[in-house]
Amino acid sequence: MSVIYGRVALIGLGLIASSMFWAMKRGGLAGEVTGYARSAETRETAREIGLCDRVCDSAAEAVDGADLVVLCVPVGAMGAVAQEIAPALKPGATVSDVGSVKKAVISAVAPHLPQGVHFVPAHPMAGTEHSGPTSGFAELFDNKYCLIVPVTGSDRAAVNRLESLWHALGSKTDEMDADHHDLVCAVTSHAPHLIAYTMVGVADDIRRVTDSEVIKYSAAGFRDFTRIAASDPTMWRDVFLSNKDATLEILGRFTEELFALQKAIRDGDGDHLHEYFTRTRAIRKGIIDAGQDTDAPDFGRGKV
Amino acid sequence: MSVIYGRVALIGLGLIASSMFWAMKRGGLAGEVTGYARSAETRETAREIGLCDRVCDSAAEAVDGADLVVLCVPVGAMGAVAQEIAPALKPGATVSDVGSVKKAVISAVAPHLPQGVHFVPAHPMAGTEHSGPTSGFAELFDNKYCLIVPVTGSDRAAVNRLESLWHALGSKTDEMDADHHDLVCAVTSHAPHLIAYTMVGVADDIRRVTDSEVIKYSAAGFRDFTRIAASDPTMWRDVFLSNKDATLEILGRFTEELFALQKAIRDGDGDHLHEYFTRTRAIRKGIIDAGQDTDAPDFGRGKV
Repeated sequence: MSVIYGRVALIGLGLIASSMFWAMKRGGLAGEVTGYARSAETRETAREIGLCDRVCDSAAEAVDGADLVVLCVPVGAMGAVAQEIAPALKPGATVSDVGSVKKAVISAVAPHLPQGVHFVPAHPMAGTEHSGPTSGFAELFDNKYCLIVPVTGSDRAAVNRLESLWHALGSKTDEMDADHHDLVCAVTSHAPHLIAYTMVGVADDIRRVTDSEVIKYSAAGFRDFTRIAASDPTMWRDVFLSNKDATLEILGRFTEELFALQKAIRDGDGDHLHEYFTRTRAIRKGIIDAGQDTDAPDFGRGKV
Repeated sequence: MSVIYGRVALIGLGLIASSMFWAMKRGGLAGEVTGYARSAETRETAREIGLCDRVCDSAAEAVDGADLVVLCVPVGAMGAVAQEIAPALKPGATVSDVGSVKKAVISAVAPHLPQGVHFVPAHPMAGTEHSGPTSGFAELFDNKYCLIVPVTGSDRAAVNRLESLWHALGSKTDEMDADHHDLVCAVTSHAPHLIAYTMVGVADDIRRVTDSEVIKYSAAGFRDFTRIAASDPTMWRDVFLSNKDATLEILGRFTEELFALQKAIRDGDGDHLHEYFTRTRAIRKGIIDAGQDTDAPDFGRGKV
């Protein structure tokens, strides 16, 4: 047990917040954890399952006296929440967040925070396709990266303390600026999600192939796309709207490349295809060697 | 133990053939299984690990006296193999295959087969990202679908017997014609694979984001794409070249839809995005309800 923050407030009680809570309990990292969610139903569920030491009925009440406040709401809701809690923040407290986009969150949150409160944006690169207060688990962040995105004037001691929390939650951390963060995430997360959503939508639309066929024969590749296309719609709507430029840039590159491969198929250029498909294997190997995925066939899926 | 074919010959000894062998052994479904692979190294490996009761040094020797011959080579090699084995086929034997494309395979194989030999094309909708003789396992086909694509004049008894083999290998079966098969697979398998290959290739190309970053932060979505983009390059080159029309049709639909979503992002049309992302969740639910994937978060990946 090594307490890093005496009191932590989690605002928003979905997959990330609930996983943070269970991981903090696992490690004894916080004296008391308070929580707040806008929906009364979510607060009720949290109370039933023991999510948070104390579930509050307002965000201001939850942050009162907190040493660390973590905003775990969809990116589009961050600004309003920051405005709401600002008057209740304890001097010297740290405010962080777990949003998938950083430039937009910093623009929305920073102006509301009073002098003497430290703002240290962060983004844990981990998740599952499930959402809501019951979806969290203590191991979510183990061995995954959490990106720390200090802003101009971020207090070094506050940054270090937040990083030590993320290490204790199981993560590795890297620091980068908000511009680079948003580009990296467009590549590793945002563009892949949009592409998966698109492919699943197309399959649902093709009238000559029934949904029942798509579902029955999905083990041939398609079902991998459906996992990330089952992620929370509100969260992802906000991500795309708030990381517009980087996402559109990567999608533009993707489309160019897809057209080149389509042309190779049309022209019967087997060498081009073979070379391309061989190169992409190396990235997979890198991910496995880095311990970021399992080498078990089919992700080690249980027999289904 | 219920023997369905007295002797089975597997031509090509990769993931599918080796899984068929282990599943036939599990169920006692064949009296003797012979095998042949073009590469001497593969034949040597097969002998070492006990893959096939007898590994032969020519395809003709392997099919000699076989009641069922299954072509398990890349789609582009099917025609040449059919020509090679044709003179050695036993009258009354059934020839099948496991190719991911059916129209092109039927065109390439059927003309070589002698009168009195039954041709029953098939395609098990199962696989992993691994390949080669050591990648097979008996459970690969359990609860997955195998599509049976009878050709004009396929003998009903021969079709039924092959279907009973696939049932005994653990699969469910559906019958359809070759045109429909190739379209269904373009949706559920071929387009998703090309899209995954493309996204992984793009990530590897973006110079402002290093490969190391892509690898470290891949848990945010990207790594799912890398699994299918690690599949066998030769197999997939042949699939795209031989199912050109259907694949290009589906990719065309995909691009249209992607452009519409890009426009929604650019225009800030959150309602359109939210509605789209909500709809795609239903397909995932259908796949899980049909027992075609696990509902465990993150595919139930082991801790990595």
